[in-house]
Amino acid sequence: MSDSAPVPRTDPFDHRVRDLALATAGRHQIRLAEHEMPGLMALRRELGDAQPLAGARIAGSLHMTVQTAVLIETLTALGAQVRWASCNIFSTQDEAAAAVVVGRPESGGSPEEPAGVPVFAWKGESLADYWWCTEQILRWPAPEGAGQQGPNLILDDGGDVTMLVHEGLAAENRGAVPGDPKPGERGYSEEKLVVLDTLRRIIAAEPTFFSRVAAGIGGVSEETTTGVHRLEQLAASGDLLFPAINVNDSVTKSKFDNRYGIRHSLPDGLNRATDVLMGGKTAFVAGYGDVGKGAAEALRGQGARVIVSEIDPICALQAAMDGYRVARLEDVVGEVDFVITTTGNVDVVRAEHILAMKDKAVLGNIGHFDNELDIAGLAATPGVEKVEIKPQVHEWLLPADTAPDGAARPERSVIVLSEGRLLNLGNATGHPSFVMSTSFANQVLAQVELHRGADYLEVADGETPRVHRLPKVLDEKVARDHLAALGAQLTELTKDQAEYIGVDVAGPYKSEHYRY
Amino acid sequence: MSDSAPVPRTDPFDHRVRDLALATAGRHQIRLAEHEMPGLMALRRELGDAQPLAGARIAGSLHMTVQTAVLIETLTALGAQVRWASCNIFSTQDEAAAAVVVGRPESGGSPEEPAGVPVFAWKGESLADYWWCTEQILRWPAPEGAGQQGPNLILDDGGDVTMLVHEGLAAENRGAVPGDPKPGERGYSEEKLVVLDTLRRIIAAEPTFFSRVAAGIGGVSEETTTGVHRLEQLAASGDLLFPAINVNDSVTKSKFDNRYGIRHSLPDGLNRATDVLMGGKTAFVAGYGDVGKGAAEALRGQGARVIVSEIDPICALQAAMDGYRVARLEDVVGEVDFVITTTGNVDVVRAEHILAMKDKAVLGNIGHFDNELDIAGLAATPGVEKVEIKPQVHEWLLPADTAPDGAARPERSVIVLSEGRLLNLGNATGHPSFVMSTSFANQVLAQVELHRGADYLEVADGETPRVHRLPKVLDEKVARDHLAALGAQLTELTKDQAEYIGVDVAGPYKSEHYRY
Ligand SMILES: NC(=O)c1ccc[n+]([C@@H]2O[C@H](COP(=O)([O-])OP(=O)(O)OC[C@H]3O[C@@H](n4cnc5c(N)ncnc54)[C@H](O)[C@@H]3O)[C@@H](O)[C@H]2O)c1
Ligand SMILES: NC(=O)c1ccc[n+]([C@@H]2O[C@H](COP(=O)([O-])OP(=O)(O)OC[C@H]3O[C@@H](n4cnc5c(N)ncnc54)[C@H](O)[C@@H]3O)[C@@H](O)[C@H]2O)c1
Repeated sequence: MSDSAPVPRTDPFDHRVRDLALATAGRHQIRLAEHEMPGLMALRRELGDAQPLAGARIAGSLHMTVQTAVLIETLTALGAQVRWASCNIFSTQDEAAAAVVVGRPESGGSPEEPAGVPVFAWKGESLADYWWCTEQILRWPAPEGAGQQGPNLILDDGGDVTMLVHEGLAAENRGAVPGDPKPGERGYSEEKLVVLDTLRRIIAAEPTFFSRVAAGIGGVSEETTTGVHRLEQLAASGDLLFPAINVNDSVTKSKFDNRYGIRHSLPDGLNRATDVLMGGKTAFVAGYGDVGKGAAEALRGQGARVIVSEIDPICALQAAMDGYRVARLEDVVGEVDFVITTTGNVDVVRAEHILAMKDKAVLGNIGHFDNELDIAGLAATPGVEKVEIKPQVHEWLLPADTAPDGAARPERSVIVLSEGRLLNLGNATGHPSFVMSTSFANQVLAQVELHRGADYLEVADGETPRVHRLPKVLDEKVARDHLAALGAQLTELTKDQAEYIGVDVAGPYKSEHYRY
Repeated sequence: MSDSAPVPRTDPFDHRVRDLALATAGRHQIRLAEHEMPGLMALRRELGDAQPLAGARIAGSLHMTVQTAVLIETLTALGAQVRWASCNIFSTQDEAAAAVVVGRPESGGSPEEPAGVPVFAWKGESLADYWWCTEQILRWPAPEGAGQQGPNLILDDGGDVTMLVHEGLAAENRGAVPGDPKPGERGYSEEKLVVLDTLRRIIAAEPTFFSRVAAGIGGVSEETTTGVHRLEQLAASGDLLFPAINVNDSVTKSKFDNRYGIRHSLPDGLNRATDVLMGGKTAFVAGYGDVGKGAAEALRGQGARVIVSEIDPICALQAAMDGYRVARLEDVVGEVDFVITTTGNVDVVRAEHILAMKDKAVLGNIGHFDNELDIAGLAATPGVEKVEIKPQVHEWLLPADTAPDGAARPERSVIVLSEGRLLNLGNATGHPSFVMSTSFANQVLAQVELHRGADYLEVADGETPRVHRLPKVLDEKVARDHLAALGAQLTELTKDQAEYIGVDVAGPYKSEHYRY
């Protein structure tokens, strides 16, 4: 455990959060968030009686924010049992975590006798904490007279839980956890060593832990682009252990959360972290996918000139047609005031780029993993020095040196946000509730689909599990449940019109390949 | 033929356009357009020597504009023979049609001895003209000593040629053309009667005309949403006669032409037609698909307040998140200054809506067919009067009457553009060249794929032909060929990065379901 010591284990159930005394503050925020999350509240109203998640034991790993609290309590309102961890060391809102543990007012829970959901998350976990928390959501209290239990469903964001289960099982099957990669070797990262340690520790204590847990899991719903990539790689190699629902690619997720969510939370993160004006400045956005589109729009909305980089010519042409300059980082790095990465890819900003940045330029990542920025490479550069301005905001002092083109560079510094982890969650509170309501309504529907074993999820004989998207009608339902709150009036098709465009009056309205 | 009499048939080959003397003016415009169409010029350079369209006889039906001239001459540069009609009675640019008939300078053609491509199109065709022109592109001069010939490929926009061939063949197989529907009956329209007449005339002269023509056709590439709907309906019922490539749903088509093209050509059409200020006014856009998104963005860009209507909750929520009011036409029709339809659906603006519009409000359609507006219903309203302000701009005088809510309405008028046909092509010159270069590069690639018989187009035994999209690498190629002209610099993936996101360094970069 880190110094930022979590509260100790408390009865009647285990959990670990910063401070249960924060629960009242958290509950107020949750109450206001519920008002802004019409999709989740609609699901509680519609499905609360039917209890479609009765019997579900959900291991959830997703930024433990106020919005996630509303998600968790929607899952339990539909009958599920839940254990929760955050999917990022910096993204927890401690008051939300406390409130979830204490429980909804009607549960009668209190900080002394919490009656909510076991949460293992606090803002500022160490990597060892993080993987310990992740482990805890795989360990379920054994019911009276029964053996150890695990989850039967995973709700994942970025795929860390799913990865731990897959790697753990593979290690058990091979009879050994792989040896540590060395710095500089392929696959090396500080975090990788912690994961391997975690696997060794768990398997040493119970050599068939992951075999037991994996056998109990009926499926996973995945929140984000990066997690979906990982799932698709597993499915392609035939290694995926259970069916997966790709929540990210519901239209009402990726086209809303990734885009409109970022449009809100990127400037929020920059403001809370730096209070530096964006207007008139030049901002560089790496990647023009959904997140990049939202980032560029927000920065332009604040009066910044935006330069975009892309590796995909289609997205590059979209950026150009949207009026952005499209350039490579190395060609413009010396003229930009902000560098924001949104690619879901590795090593997009390397140490040589950082060293070429303007004095006091701000560098942040809003993609899922911190490996978009090579902070380790920066730290390894001789003469650099890291000064903490405040938590999650660091100034890196760069020594006077000589640029690759031979020019002398004076001493200067760059500001790095959230140590390279997603800055909207590290430096602010992530996406606003309304947008998370669209994402999380998809998550709840995905958990219901997995738990009821929808036909399309069936794994045919001789086949291995695959990654599915939610049926379009559910996607449309999520949108529908958010219209009234914005005062939007939907037009209804006449029967003749529906026939003319070849759809049902009630939808779905578009072909599978429609792009929105 | 209509009064707007086309020039008579001229040797050495048949054609019918307004006036070949316009060819010089047309050629100047084509030359400038070539500069703005880097995608088509790249294909000429890359594939000109290989002549991948040698042996292709392409029947093309697509707005006969300057940009289409560059498309036609790209097809011939790749070895194709081509016959062309417009797919709309108002969309032809007569000087472009003339230049294509006369031929490129190096052909040695002149108005007296044209040496280009047979075109059958002029601005302001009657419906009878229109279908006669369409017929002509199915009739190919018989080569020396051979029998009658037809096309072996169709390039369609909206699906009229494909429809004519399918309905003609069906009539021949049934032994009769269906009887005329009566006004008020399902499927009735003035145009429908003309189509049925055309079928009767052709089949009377040659009872197996369509059987012969259909047998010769190897495939169709379709340009637009509405045409794709028609193809998908044919494919679903097993009636599609040959494989189809859906060009519309290349990303570099629908996400560029339908959106950025409309963003340019909608205000252009409104300006040329009316010279009325958009700023400060309220504009209503029916439909928030690709075309609606471009329309709304353009109107907002001009300072209008925009209200959007949608039947699809996802698109409705997108409109709301983009900051537009979402409402039903009937609820706001009395407060808007512009009504623009972009739905590809029928009867979106009905006579009762038009009667409820503000005095001098402007009504226009930018979807493919004029049936989005019920102009026939308007014309049938007692006491209305139609005044031609100039060609394609009509003021409809509405008599004093009583609204459905009992309120007295004074005399007033509304301005209807292009008699309800797509106003960007009827009142202006359609999309700009650059955007059409992305669309048409996809068309050329689709024709090449059809002509070479790409594997994925094969119709398996016992199956019927289907509708395909172009492979994503070709879509990406089209984008790539347009970057340099905009000064956009693409970033290249490193091998490690490519592996991390599970793609090839050269693409394709996204999964099939990615939405851009
Ligand atoms: N911070 C948040 O709240 C949040 C929310 C949603 C998604 N995400 C994460 O953001 C990342 C991006 O998600 P998305 O939905 O936009 O994905 P996406 O696939 O739509 O977009 C990523 C884009 O980056 C481009 N790209 C890849 N490598 C590049 C490189 N080296 N240089 C420049 N461009 C490159 C890709 O071509 C793609 O267009 C993912 O990691 C996702 O999990 C974060
Ligand atoms: N004028 C041009 O230059 C041009 C260019 C491209 C496409 N088009 C045509 O424009 C039309 C739209 O194309 P698109 O690509 O945007 O299609 P699309 O399917 O993306 O968008 C149409 C939208 O209209 C909505 N809609 C359907 N019926 C409706 C109704 N009654 N009221 C309100 N909304 C309704 C649909 O839900 C959909 O979102 C098609 O006919 C297409 O062929 C015209």
